[in-house]
Amino acid sequence: MANARVIVRLKPEVLDPQGDAVRRALERLGFEGVKGVRIGKIIEIEIDAQHAKEAAPKLAKMADELLANPVTEDFEVSID
Amino acid sequence: MANARVIVRLKPEVLDPQGDAVRRALERLGFEGVKGVRIGKIIEIEIDAQHAKEAAPKLAKMADELLANPVTEDFEVSID
Repeated sequence: MANARVIVRLKPEVLDPQGDAVRRALERLGFEGVKGVRIGKIIEIEIDAQHAKEAAPKLAKMADELLANPVTEDFEVSID
Repeated sequence: MANARVIVRLKPEVLDPQGDAVRRALERLGFEGVKGVRIGKIIEIEIDAQHAKEAAPKLAKMADELLANPVTEDFEVSID
């Protein structure tokens, strides 16, 4: 069994109102020094052993076709 | 500037219909061997240098109070 992980983040130039709301809430709760908060998704994929080898190069394709919106989001894939 | 990262995941015993939908969609798109998909959140927090040291031990508190729902979610914090 292989575990793959795709992290999807908003592109740096895209505003993140949800992250901003969390930043303000942390401030209100008394956490100091928080300059910015960005919220993304983490998609954890379990791949069975016999497909693991061929799956690795497909991960970026998966992310590009289904998991991330290439207009507003970047992604990062890893497998172990 | 320090970068902290909080990963929030559904607890293993909590169903993840969004993850299941992604698993089925990947199958339909022809990706083989995907046994399970779980979707979580990744919260990336920028903390200014003068607060970075004291922030580290507060991260778990932040996650517990604001970022994760302790009834249904687990979290993992890291800082670099």
